[in-house]
This record gives sequence, structure tokens and C-alpha cells, in this order.
Amino acid sequence: MLVVPDLDAFSALQLVGLVAFTLSGAAVAVRAGMDWLGIVVLGTITSIGGGTIRDLLIGGGVGWVAEPWPIWVALIVSLVVVAVSHWSPRHEPDSLRVVLVADAAGLAVFTVLGTTLALSAGIERDVAVMLGVISGVGGGVIRDVLAGQRPLVLVGQVYALTAIAGSVLFVALDAADLDRDVARWSAVAV
Amino acid sequence: MLVVPDLDAFSALQLVGLVAFTLSGAAVAVRAGMDWLGIVVLGTITSIGGGTIRDLLIGGGVGWVAEPWPIWVALIVSLVVVAVSHWSPRHEPDSLRVVLVADAAGLAVFTVLGTTLALSAGIERDVAVMLGVISGVGGGVIRDVLAGQRPLVLVGQVYALTAIAGSVLFVALDAADLDRDVARWSAVAV
Amino acid sequence: MLVVPDLDAFSALQLVGLVAFTLSGAAVAVRAGMDWLGIVVLGTITSIGGGTIRDLLIGGGVGWVAEPWPIWVALIVSLVVVAVSHWSPRHEPDSLRVVLVADAAGLAVFTVLGTTLALSAGIERDVAVMLGVISGVGGGVIRDVLAGQRPLVLVGQVYALTAIAGSVLFVALDAADLDRDVARWSAVAV
Repeated sequence: MLVVPDLDAFSALQLVGLVAFTLSGAAVAVRAGMDWLGIVVLGTITSIGGGTIRDLLIGGGVGWVAEPWPIWVALIVSLVVVAVSHWSPRHEPDSLRVVLVADAAGLAVFTVLGTTLALSAGIERDVAVMLGVISGVGGGVIRDVLAGQRPLVLVGQVYALTAIAGSVLFVALDAADLDRDVARWSAVAV
Repeated sequence: MLVVPDLDAFSALQLVGLVAFTLSGAAVAVRAGMDWLGIVVLGTITSIGGGTIRDLLIGGGVGWVAEPWPIWVALIVSLVVVAVSHWSPRHEPDSLRVVLVADAAGLAVFTVLGTTLALSAGIERDVAVMLGVISGVGGGVIRDVLAGQRPLVLVGQVYALTAIAGSVLFVALDAADLDRDVARWSAVAV
Repeated sequence: MLVVPDLDAFSALQLVGLVAFTLSGAAVAVRAGMDWLGIVVLGTITSIGGGTIRDLLIGGGVGWVAEPWPIWVALIVSLVVVAVSHWSPRHEPDSLRVVLVADAAGLAVFTVLGTTLALSAGIERDVAVMLGVISGVGGGVIRDVLAGQRPLVLVGQVYALTAIAGSVLFVALDAADLDRDVARWSAVAV
């Protein structure tokens, strides 16, 4: 069932983003006092939400429907969070930091990946930036709406701005080496 | 305008699910003190929401756009709820029970139908289970978000779990008789 | 980057609807005390939300992904709102009126445009009405959910009803002159 992806640079980055967003969603669920099922559901939806919206907008089919490994990653990471929160509860302040750090990391990675995917689907540069931003913030928006909070992106200081900056930077550096760019951009985001 | 579907087993089940979810959405609207229009809108969205998300993810076109009878079913059932709540109001405790029972019934039926549709679209079994669960819980999630409540699936004890169990069971029994399976699974759910 | 659309009747109407919904989203963000980024994001999402859902349901690709000028319109109008709210703040009562008037105007225009698009995509008349209504109310529903408010369409007196009436009227007058119809229908809505 679980197909291990071949870990090229792209899949490795995607894995980082998936884990980061799963952690952010699961941590929000823990902070909201949800039971283990809520943690798994919110972690999984946060993880695959942004990419799913991006894929629907691009229109070439949704990634995890064809290759479901991201869902398995999200489910496994969520269950780890359930286990950790069960055996060592009472980490409220930590879990807030987890949400913010994981969100920033996932945002950075998914924005770059989303922009890359959109460009490689033959989409114009300005739209590719938009789709990159949607990939980056989409999961977090769904997470916050489901948890009954105002989305971070609407109240969050320079939150979406870093996504836009990163995506624009990435398009500008189009031909540059992916890893170098991500490192630079992650620095901007965090 | 209203095309009556031929009532084979599949359409009959879909009809049951549509009526159940329309009732659950309309009952939530009644409990929230919405006017008749809110009842109709929330009933209809709840009814077709889960299947719509599933169809978008599968990517072969949205069912009710090609064949709109589910919308007419939802509109008619919603209007019946409007009439009943108008002529015999003050059924608060009953309407909570209506929400929970209708939700469980719709969840059971739509999970099995969604899994069936995904399998027949040539989708892998683990993804088909996921899409079945999304069909089953999607309408309720949209209903709760629009009504400003935390989604049942995130706080609901074994709510989503029964959907997953039913869907896995169904895939396992793939070749078995549909009706028997649904009966069994409905028993699990309720 | 910014491609100016050729201003035929259809694009002109779309422009009116985009500006109206951007204003309504941005005004909700101002009233909710969001920062400039929240205003831009909420204005943009409100503006393109209804049409995006409609395009996803119809299934022939999302309009602004192929031709992004609506996004640029939404961004520019949002930034104007940011500037105005920065230099002349404290317009609370006005901004509520802005929301309601802009919403009604956008609703009227997008319902007619959505119905037109659906009909020209070869969709049945009853479904085209439904898709028109979704185009008209979709952006506002997303706006209200993201801002943490109960959607206007669920509490709003005759709000969605005017959308339905307008759409049905439009389909009935199918062959009639577009501009005349829109004028008539706008009168109904406001």
C-alpha cells in the first residue's frame, strides 16, 4: 500500500513540507483539545489541502489521487503526534511554537514547489506565483477555518507576504539551482 | 425539469443519502434560527457537498452538473422541512436527534457509494477508501463550517472512524453483494 | 504582466462584478480590523471566489488561471482600499453600507454572467441557474467564512432569492438583449 517515493530533490522537499504542515495541523488540533481522530483528520487535511487546491485550479488531476504516498505520510506523522501528545501531554506553549515554525517551514517549501509545478504545467509567471502562494497558504487556511480560528494569513503580519516574496524570487531565479534558492527563501521566511 | 432517476440499487441508495444529509443540514439551519432561505441553502449544500468534492478530486466531472436530479431532491426535501418547521415549530431536542441520526445514515450510505464510484473510476483501493470517507464527511463539514460550528468530524468521538471502517470493510468485501454490505455497514455506523 | 481586457459588454460586466466584490471583501476586512495584507487577501479571494467555484464545477478550466487579469484588478482595487482606509480611517458605518451595496451589485452581475457562461458551456437550464447563483453568492460565502461571520446568504432575508430570481429571469429572457436584462435584474437586486 505505502509506496516509498524515490527521494529526488523535489520529493524530498515535498516530504519536508508535508511533515511540517501535518505537524502544524496536528498541533492546532491538540491545542484545541480535539481527540485523536480530530488530530489525525486536521493534520492530514492541513498537509494535503494547499496542494489539492492548487491541483484543482491547474486542472491536470489531483496529485495524491494518482499517487497516495502524501496521505500516508500525513497519517503516520499525525499518529506520531497523537502518541506523543498522549504520553507527554501539557506542552501548550511548545505546541504554539510548533504551529508557527512548522507553518513557516511548510509555507516556504510548498510555495516554491507550487510555483515550480505551475511553471512546468506551462502556466504564465504571474499566475504561477499566485498558485505557489495558494499552495503555501491553502492548507493553513483550511486548518484555521476548520478549527474555528481566523486564518493566520489574514491576521499574520507578513505571513502571506513572505510567500509572495519567495515565489516571486523563485520565478526570478527560475534557472537557478533549486536547492540554493529554497535555502535562501527559507531564510527569508523564518 | 425534474428527471426521476431509474431506481436501481445505486440510485436508491444515493436517494437515501441525499434525503438524510438534506435533513441534517436543514435541521442544523432550523436549530441555528435561520430563515427559510437559510434552511434551503444549507440543506442543499450539505446534501450535495460531499459528492461534489469527491467528483472534483476524481476529476471526471461533477455528477449533479450533468444530471441535476440530486439538487431537485435536496430542494424539495428542504422545502418540506421549511413547511414542517413553520407549522409545527419548537422541536429543538428532536431536531438535534434528527441531525445526528440523519448524519450517521448519510455518512454510511455516501461512504459506500463514494468508495464504489472511486473504485469504478479505476482508482487504487487506499485512495478509494479516502475518497469514500471524503464523500461521507464532506457535506457535514461544509454544513458545520457554514453554520459556524466546529465540524462534527473533528470532535465526534468515532464519527469519521465508522466511515473509514465502513469503507475499508466495503473494499475488502468488494465482490460481495452491495445491499448486504450496506446493511451490515449501516449497522456499524448507527 | 497586466493585460488590459478588451472591453466588450461581457468583460465590462465582469469588471464591474470584480470591483464590487473586491470592495465588499476589502470592506469586511477593514471592519474586522485586519492589516493591509488581510485586506488584499480577503478582497482578492472574495472577488474571484465565486467564479472559481463555478469554473471548477463546469470543469473546463479556471478562468483566471488562463487569463489572470481579474486577479490584477482585484489586487489593484484592494490596494486602493488599503490606501483609502490608511489615509482616512474611521468610516465604520460607511463601510457597512459599502459591503451591502457592493455585495448586491456583484451578486447581480456575477449571477447573470455565471448563468451565461454555463449556458454557453452547453449546460441544462436548471443547472445553469444553479451555477449562476453559485457564481453570485460563492465569493461572499468564502469572504464571510474566512472573516468568521455567518454567511450573508444564510441569514440574509431575500439575498440568495434575488440571485435565483435574476438567474431564472435571465434564462427566460435568454434571447433578449444582455444589457437590458442586466439593468432590469440589477434593479430587482438593489
